[in-house]
Amino acid sequence: MSLENVIANIKPLYQAAMQSVRARQDTLTKPQGSLGRLEELSIQLAGIMRAPIPVIKDKVIITMAGDHGVVAEGVSAYPQEVTSQMVLNFLNGGAAINVLARHVGARVVIVDMGVANDIPDADKKLIRRRIGLGTANISKNPAMTREQGTESILSGIEIVEAEIARGLDIVGTGDMGIGNTTPSAAIACALMNRHPKEIAGRGTGVDDEGLNRKISAIERALDVNKPNANDGLDVLAKVGGFEIGGLAGVMLGAASHGKPVMVDGFISTAAAMIAVSIAPQCREYLIAAHRSKEHGHGLMLDWLGLHPLLDFDLRLGEGTGAALGISMAEAACKIIAEMATFEEARVSEKK
Amino acid sequence: MSLENVIANIKPLYQAAMQSVRARQDTLTKPQGSLGRLEELSIQLAGIMRAPIPVIKDKVIITMAGDHGVVAEGVSAYPQEVTSQMVLNFLNGGAAINVLARHVGARVVIVDMGVANDIPDADKKLIRRRIGLGTANISKNPAMTREQGTESILSGIEIVEAEIARGLDIVGTGDMGIGNTTPSAAIACALMNRHPKEIAGRGTGVDDEGLNRKISAIERALDVNKPNANDGLDVLAKVGGFEIGGLAGVMLGAASHGKPVMVDGFISTAAAMIAVSIAPQCREYLIAAHRSKEHGHGLMLDWLGLHPLLDFDLRLGEGTGAALGISMAEAACKIIAEMATFEEARVSEKK
Repeated sequence: MSLENVIANIKPLYQAAMQSVRARQDTLTKPQGSLGRLEELSIQLAGIMRAPIPVIKDKVIITMAGDHGVVAEGVSAYPQEVTSQMVLNFLNGGAAINVLARHVGARVVIVDMGVANDIPDADKKLIRRRIGLGTANISKNPAMTREQGTESILSGIEIVEAEIARGLDIVGTGDMGIGNTTPSAAIACALMNRHPKEIAGRGTGVDDEGLNRKISAIERALDVNKPNANDGLDVLAKVGGFEIGGLAGVMLGAASHGKPVMVDGFISTAAAMIAVSIAPQCREYLIAAHRSKEHGHGLMLDWLGLHPLLDFDLRLGEGTGAALGISMAEAACKIIAEMATFEEARVSEKK
Repeated sequence: MSLENVIANIKPLYQAAMQSVRARQDTLTKPQGSLGRLEELSIQLAGIMRAPIPVIKDKVIITMAGDHGVVAEGVSAYPQEVTSQMVLNFLNGGAAINVLARHVGARVVIVDMGVANDIPDADKKLIRRRIGLGTANISKNPAMTREQGTESILSGIEIVEAEIARGLDIVGTGDMGIGNTTPSAAIACALMNRHPKEIAGRGTGVDDEGLNRKISAIERALDVNKPNANDGLDVLAKVGGFEIGGLAGVMLGAASHGKPVMVDGFISTAAAMIAVSIAPQCREYLIAAHRSKEHGHGLMLDWLGLHPLLDFDLRLGEGTGAALGISMAEAACKIIAEMATFEEARVSEKK
């Protein structure tokens, strides 16, 4: 498998299925268009899944973890060891993503894309794809080599393809990585040509001084590395992260197989920007689950042309917003499949 | 049971449970406040349900149907017979509310509060509380007598109490009634002292002429009936509807038993305005599921001081938005009950 092949396999949405759902929506026992976003979503899902009656059963959240050398600059409110501790929490089912995934009937796949600290071997459920023991400190060096960037994306593609082989109908993206709002903001700044002040936020909760350190670290990262805004892989390698590359790969891989992607918050959106930079046609396969409380997220969604489903002031990551969004996507599909038509229910139509 | 007794039983939210949940949220393995609206919701639900770990299992949507004499003024895009036809569709499981209620694991209770046309007797699942064969034409007369207004509210209270006896943990409100955005807008105009142009929208889809007829009908309804903005029951009786009174009763009854109410869209919000006019302390028991596409709904939510969960451009009613909102409320409770604490998961806390 080469990245080029995967990109070449991402087709435009299937218009015939979209047209079929658009027409069917108007025969169902409700005023035309009265289910708003759910109707739009059902049409997009039909185009993605190439099905006039799209069905979502196997729901998967892929949560990817990685560490970030830039934490040395004091950009996060939490110590780095929390990344590996939270991976264990995911495996034990005690984190927010576990609770919300169970709530919507999704399974969670946890991937170590590059955690710095040890994670005990006992648990076979963890997928180990460690590209490195955390990235380098982007305020001084590139996060990773270009080859590692490619490797992280290819790993994401392989992982989602394995889940597709198990029956995946929709994938939600999730992240864990202390410090990862910093590389995510750096990616957004690089691709949108914005100043870090316009994008960076408080992440897990840094104070004013922490936010200033973060903005300064991103300024230096952009200055030292000079990421090329016309080359998504260059941006990923210079100021990104292993889990961010992995998530971009999940998106590209899912799109190449006609599977919808529910994009979580700030970090997942940065990954989406990398994926769209590499393969613009994958954008149509993405659904934005929510607008995060994190500063700049709205601008990033605008750049992608995505209108988020929820506005819940979430700022947790892990795939928590994606889990809620997946439930909406499933609901949208069920409307198409399960509602009676005016004719079937013998309900009079509009005058 | 008297309405006065029910009102007297609506207590302020239980602060100790709210404080307990607020404190517990900060011990769970996530940055403090990072689940945004879900955290706020969990705190409100704890206060309503008087439980430090509120649990939502039995979810019920009560969908009330009624007809409206004002349809004679040409205010709706659909013929009146659709009300009874849709009640049958509900009973047969083919409507949007059935699909979405199944999706979130809620049961649907259908009530005939005053449908004009016959509904075949065969189906025992229908609760029959017909106060009248549709209301009178509010552009010429009061919708109903004051006694009928009280009766519709008391019926709603009885119906929700019966469901509480069956185990109801949360109730969502829903409506069906061709023409019922007209009385709902009239209620909002009366209570907020607004002109119909600021509130009335296209309902199920009237054209410009239909919208003008609707605005004119509401103007005449307010002019002829002179509803007293300081008397919610008077407003209901003069310009309301039987299903609207029933839903106000559901809200008052649920609040008096410490049960949360997920308020659906435009019609349910008009019912909430009646309920809050009659018993202001019931407001804290209400959660707004969504902001409808219907013109004026945002102003009504502002008047109630409710911040809607979803913004999906829904304009269907039936309880469809409430079903989605109930799933969010359940998720909020599960976060409290199921997430590991920092201590349990041995995750390091903030620096």
